[in-house]
Amino acid sequence: MASVPVIDRDRERPQPSLGPLLRLLEADLARVNAVIVERMDSPVALIPQLAGHIVSAGGKRLRPMLTLGCARLCGYRGERHIALAAAVEFIHTATLLHDDVVDASDLRRGRDTANAVWGNKPAVLVGDFLFARSFELMVEDGSLRVLDILSRTAAVIAEGEVHQLITANDTGSTEAAYLEVIEAKTAALFAAASRIGAVLAERPVEEEEALARFGRNLGIAYQLIDDMLDFSASEREFGKSVGDDFRDGKITLPILIAFARGDAEERAFWRRTLEDGDQEAGDLERALRLVERRGALAETLARARAYAAAAADALSLFPRGPMRRALAEAAAFATERGF
Amino acid sequence: MASVPVIDRDRERPQPSLGPLLRLLEADLARVNAVIVERMDSPVALIPQLAGHIVSAGGKRLRPMLTLGCARLCGYRGERHIALAAAVEFIHTATLLHDDVVDASDLRRGRDTANAVWGNKPAVLVGDFLFARSFELMVEDGSLRVLDILSRTAAVIAEGEVHQLITANDTGSTEAAYLEVIEAKTAALFAAASRIGAVLAERPVEEEEALARFGRNLGIAYQLIDDMLDFSASEREFGKSVGDDFRDGKITLPILIAFARGDAEERAFWRRTLEDGDQEAGDLERALRLVERRGALAETLARARAYAAAAADALSLFPRGPMRRALAEAAAFATERGF
Repeated sequence: MASVPVIDRDRERPQPSLGPLLRLLEADLARVNAVIVERMDSPVALIPQLAGHIVSAGGKRLRPMLTLGCARLCGYRGERHIALAAAVEFIHTATLLHDDVVDASDLRRGRDTANAVWGNKPAVLVGDFLFARSFELMVEDGSLRVLDILSRTAAVIAEGEVHQLITANDTGSTEAAYLEVIEAKTAALFAAASRIGAVLAERPVEEEEALARFGRNLGIAYQLIDDMLDFSASEREFGKSVGDDFRDGKITLPILIAFARGDAEERAFWRRTLEDGDQEAGDLERALRLVERRGALAETLARARAYAAAAADALSLFPRGPMRRALAEAAAFATERGF
Repeated sequence: MASVPVIDRDRERPQPSLGPLLRLLEADLARVNAVIVERMDSPVALIPQLAGHIVSAGGKRLRPMLTLGCARLCGYRGERHIALAAAVEFIHTATLLHDDVVDASDLRRGRDTANAVWGNKPAVLVGDFLFARSFELMVEDGSLRVLDILSRTAAVIAEGEVHQLITANDTGSTEAAYLEVIEAKTAALFAAASRIGAVLAERPVEEEEALARFGRNLGIAYQLIDDMLDFSASEREFGKSVGDDFRDGKITLPILIAFARGDAEERAFWRRTLEDGDQEAGDLERALRLVERRGALAETLARARAYAAAAADALSLFPRGPMRRALAEAAAFATERGF
């Protein structure tokens, strides 16, 4: 963020990090990874090959960490959180694979995803395989409560993704619609992953709800930052991919703000590039300048921080200690990552 | 089938039909359809719209009929078979939607599927939605046994579909590999749909296994006929779609037989059109002539009839009566349909 230089902020307070959570969960996470590797295996070699590509690219394992951390926060001492954290990651991975599916029109825009390597069809089918494996893991665990939570969540995610397709290219879509989309496509799985921790520990419903609130707010913050980084000129300098959402005509919060605050000429620009899909050389650079000039990135960051704070607040029900601090710091990290 | 004219066969014996099964299950099927319509609904309008297109196109409801019919055959008197039959149909529908996903290369070959109307992405996401809904229905039912059967089946289906992608374009692939593929991608769901009937009625494992065998053999017969009809010149005269598998380079039994029985020139033709994907005008017509001339269609039909007979045999454990007769006739129908 040009307006918030990295160095200055580092002097104000230590940069929040996933480190404490990672250290507390190190042993659990290693076991989750072992389950993931074991369960994505298949005699059909393309399956572990393709799944491995995306599972290892996923990297952070944020969602399974929520299941593990929330279970531990609730005092859970058993083993079931390992397989369920893997199930959560499989749902996420399946979603990623299906989200990369492209249509001929996208190909013309020159997108380059995992699907560019193997094609749409294997990516879809391997996603289906991982989705089925996720349910196998849950069935082996045997909790109908968990199955209920995650099957509903899977339906909500798919609904959110379709909803996003429909609102794409519509600069007249509202912030409310945008929030509905990201709550469904991203925050719902964060919420479910966290809630399961309380379910495993057989905690009262207030604690379940508190953890779901923690996950939901964290998920919204996470997605807001994701959408912001797609317009970050400094990200681009670091060689990261920027402008994917712009090229896809996705209407995210930075655009909604820049559009609302823009003058007639700027609105005409957004309509041409996003609604009409008529993009030419230099348009992305202009888009980056406009969202910056209209304060849309700073505003998006401010909103994300508010959601992250709400996430941390939701933990107040639980005993103070290293796990609660680590989860709260993970929420703060979500808004400060990537720059 | 040019070698087995319709008229002559009709004189030999009455054409087997789904009619008796449909009549016995009429009330149950109406309730399954109501559950399907209710559960594919969503505030995101594109979902029921697209799902409705494919669910109504599916038509025959063969798989849910197996669940309903097998439950009744086992003396089941409850209500749970309705929702589970709908769950089975949702898995099938999701598979259909995902099977229609195309890559840019397919588009160039001029395929025209549901995805041509809405694009790949909505089809994938609506498939995911139906898959999730299917698990919601099973979770509401509450049987971990059923969840176990259908989650494993879903993984097997995806594995079979990926396996098929890998063996496509390889004229050196074996009949054993072909059978593995169709057992996984088609017969596994027929088997699971049938097995659930015995699970609901809490029948001993031998009856479960017998119904699974019934379903599996019926599914193989069904898929063999599907693959045969794709090369049927008479189908083509009726205006039905023919040659899709040939254009996709799918190696099905008719091709394996025609290739094995073909001379050097014919094998060169199959290699050019299927392995190299180099197809030109007139090639489909030549392919239809070759499978016919080499007796590959008659041989495929003979195999399908053997599987259908094995399916009917698997019912011998159960009491004689209208339901057993109707299910056996459905197996026979699977091999005589469509021409």
